[in-house]
Amino acid sequence: MPKNRLEAFTDCVFSIIITILVLQLAAPSEATFEALWSLRYSLVIYVLSFGSLAIYWVNHHHIFHLANKVNGKVLWLNMALLLFLSLFPFTTSWVDKHAFQTAPAIVFSANVLLADIFYVQLVRELIRLHGEGSAVEQIFCASTSKKSKITISIVCCSIALGIWLPLVSVILCAASMLIWITPNRRIEQAFVGEERKE
Amino acid sequence: MPKNRLEAFTDCVFSIIITILVLQLAAPSEATFEALWSLRYSLVIYVLSFGSLAIYWVNHHHIFHLANKVNGKVLWLNMALLLFLSLFPFTTSWVDKHAFQTAPAIVFSANVLLADIFYVQLVRELIRLHGEGSAVEQIFCASTSKKSKITISIVCCSIALGIWLPLVSVILCAASMLIWITPNRRIEQAFVGEERKE
Amino acid sequence: MPKNRLEAFTDCVFSIIITILVLQLAAPSEATFEALWSLRYSLVIYVLSFGSLAIYWVNHHHIFHLANKVNGKVLWLNMALLLFLSLFPFTTSWVDKHAFQTAPAIVFSANVLLADIFYVQLVRELIRLHGEGSAVEQIFCASTSKKSKITISIVCCSIALGIWLPLVSVILCAASMLIWITPNRRIEQAFVGEERKE
Amino acid sequence: MPKNRLEAFTDCVFSIIITILVLQLAAPSEATFEALWSLRYSLVIYVLSFGSLAIYWVNHHHIFHLANKVNGKVLWLNMALLLFLSLFPFTTSWVDKHAFQTAPAIVFSANVLLADIFYVQLVRELIRLHGEGSAVEQIFCASTSKKSKITISIVCCSIALGIWLPLVSVILCAASMLIWITPNRRIEQAFVGEERKE
Repeated sequence: MPKNRLEAFTDCVFSIIITILVLQLAAPSEATFEALWSLRYSLVIYVLSFGSLAIYWVNHHHIFHLANKVNGKVLWLNMALLLFLSLFPFTTSWVDKHAFQTAPAIVFSANVLLADIFYVQLVRELIRLHGEGSAVEQIFCASTSKKSKITISIVCCSIALGIWLPLVSVILCAASMLIWITPNRRIEQAFVGEERKE
Repeated sequence: MPKNRLEAFTDCVFSIIITILVLQLAAPSEATFEALWSLRYSLVIYVLSFGSLAIYWVNHHHIFHLANKVNGKVLWLNMALLLFLSLFPFTTSWVDKHAFQTAPAIVFSANVLLADIFYVQLVRELIRLHGEGSAVEQIFCASTSKKSKITISIVCCSIALGIWLPLVSVILCAASMLIWITPNRRIEQAFVGEERKE
Repeated sequence: MPKNRLEAFTDCVFSIIITILVLQLAAPSEATFEALWSLRYSLVIYVLSFGSLAIYWVNHHHIFHLANKVNGKVLWLNMALLLFLSLFPFTTSWVDKHAFQTAPAIVFSANVLLADIFYVQLVRELIRLHGEGSAVEQIFCASTSKKSKITISIVCCSIALGIWLPLVSVILCAASMLIWITPNRRIEQAFVGEERKE
Repeated sequence: MPKNRLEAFTDCVFSIIITILVLQLAAPSEATFEALWSLRYSLVIYVLSFGSLAIYWVNHHHIFHLANKVNGKVLWLNMALLLFLSLFPFTTSWVDKHAFQTAPAIVFSANVLLADIFYVQLVRELIRLHGEGSAVEQIFCASTSKKSKITISIVCCSIALGIWLPLVSVILCAASMLIWITPNRRIEQAFVGEERKE
C-alpha cells in the first residue's frame, strides 16, 4: 500500500494536536504586561507541547521519507502512536499546573513512555516490512535502536523518580526527547545520495 | 475523476472528528491519582470514540486504495458517511454518561446503523463504478457484503435490545465493529500482487 | 502554478468549517428522548450548515478538477470565498434561533450572496486563465453563468423579502443552493471522455 | 527530501490557525442589527487575523512552489514560523480589545517581528540550500531581502512607537504586511516561463 494517505492523515492529526492548547489561550483581561505575565504558565505549556510534538513530527517525517510502503499493522501502530500523542496537551497542562506533585509527574512520564514504545514498534514494523538491506533498515535500525534504548531508560527512571523528586522527574523526561531533535547524519547523507541518483 | 481530493478531504474531516473529544478534556483540578480517576469516563469515551473512528478510517483507506476513480454519487455518499461519523463523539459521550438507559443506547445504535448503511452504499457504488472483474469488485464485493450483513443484523438487534437491556445493547453494537479491525487476507494479497507487477 | 496546494489548503479549511458546529453539541443532560428533542434545533443547524458547505465543496472539487493551473488572483479570490464560507456556521446558527426575525434573515442571505459572488468571480478568473477552448471554459462558462444568475437573483430577492417575510426569505435563500447539488451532465461526460483518452 | 509533507502539514496548521477565532464567534443573543453591531470588534479581529495569515500563506505558497527540496533546518525554521503565527489570534484579539494601550501594541508588534524574522530565515535557508543560480535564488533573493528590510524596519519602529502612540503603532505594524499581498512580477513571469517549457 502506498504511504501517502497515512502521511496525510497523520499530518492533519498532528496539526490539530499541536494547536489544541492555543484554542484555550484567551487574551488577558487587562492591557498590562502584568496581565500577560499571569498567563506565562499557559504560554510555557503551549510552547513545550508544541515543541515536543514537533520533535515527534520531524522524526515521523524522516522515517516515512525513506519508507515506500505500509501495511495494516503499520496503520494500527501509527493510530496507537497518534492516540497517545493526542493526550500530550492534557498531561502537559496537568504537569505544569502542579510541577512539584507526584501524580502528574508519573502520568506525564507514563504518557511519554507509551508514545515512545509505539513509535519504536512502528519503526520496527517498517524495518521488518522493507526487509534487510533496504534504506529504512540500514539507516534507522541501529540509530533508532540505540536512541530509543537511551530514551526509554531515561523515561523509566523518571517514572521511578516521580515518587520522590517530581520536578527532577519531569525535567529528565522532557530532556529525554532532546536527542531526537537532530536527525542523524546518515539520514542527511542518504538524502544527498538520493539526489545525486536523480 | 481522480480520488485524491476526496481522500484528502476525508482525512481532514476524520482527523478533526477523531480528536474533538480531546478538546474537552481539561486537566484534573487536583494533583492526585483520585482526581485523574474521576475523569476515567471521559478518557474511556475518548479512547472508544478514537478506536471506532480508526476502524472506519482503516477500512475507508483500504477500499479507496483499490479504487482509482470516483463520481458525483460517491462524493455525496462519502459526505453522508462523514455526517453520521461526525455525530459519533456526540452519541458516544451521551451513551457513556447514561449506560443503563434506553434512549442513549437506541440513539447510539441508530447512529452506528446509519453510518454503516452509508458505508455499504459507498462500497456498492464504487464496485458498480469500477465494473465487474475490477480489483475493487473481486476483493470487496463478497467480503463487504458478508461482513456488512453480519454487522447490520447485530446493530438492528442491539436497537431492539436497547428497550430492555440497554447495557447489553451498547456492548453488542460496539462489538459489531470488531470484525472490521483486520482487513481481510485477500486485500493484503492484492497488495503483494501489485508490488510484484511494479 | 500547480493547483495542488490550493486544493489541500481549501480542503483543510472546509473540513474545519463543516465540523465546527459539532464542537458545540454537548450530550443531552438527561437520558430521555425528550432531552434529545430539546437539542433538535442545534442538530438541524448542524445538518443544514454541513449540507450547504458540502454543496460548495463538491462544486469547488469539480471546477478545480478541470483546472490545471492557478495564479495569484485565484489564490486571493479563493481566500475571500473561504472567509465568507467560514462565517456560515455563525449566520446559520443565528438564523435558526430567530427564524421569524428580519435581521438574521437578511444577514444570512447577505452572507450567501457574498460567498456566491466570490465563487462566481473565482470561476470567471479560472476561465480567463485557461483561455477560450479549454475544458474549463467549454464546460463551466455557460452552465455556471446561467446557474449563478438564477442563484444570485433568488438571493437578492430573499434579501428584499427578509424585511416582510423573514421565514420565506430564509427558505428561498437555502433553496437557491439546491440547483448546485447535481454537477451538470457535461462535467460527467468530460470525465468519461478523459478516461477513454487515458 | 521532498517538500510535499512540509507543505501538507503547514497547510493544515494554517487552516486551523486561520479559523480558530471563528470558533469563538457565538450568534448574537437577540435578533436585531444592534446585537450584531455589538459583535463588530470580534468580527473585525476575525477578518484582520484571517487576512494577515492569508498573506503569510500566499507568500509561503510562492516560495515553496519554486523550492524543490527541504532539509532538517528548513523543517525546524518552518516549525518556529508556525509557532509564532499560531499566536496571532491571541495577540490580535488582545490588541483589538485595548487599541489605545501600550502593552498589547508592543506585544502584537513583537509577535509580527518574530514571525517575520523566522520567515526571512526560512527563505534564506531555502536560497542557501538550492544554491546560486537556482530559481529560488534568482527570484526571491533580491526581492525578499528588500521587502523584509522594509517590513522589519517598520515593525521595529512600531514597537518603539507603541510606548507613546499605541494606536499608530498597531496600524503601522499591520500596514507593514500590505507590501506582501502581491507576489512580485518576476514570480508570475517565472511561472509563465515554466509553462512554456512544459
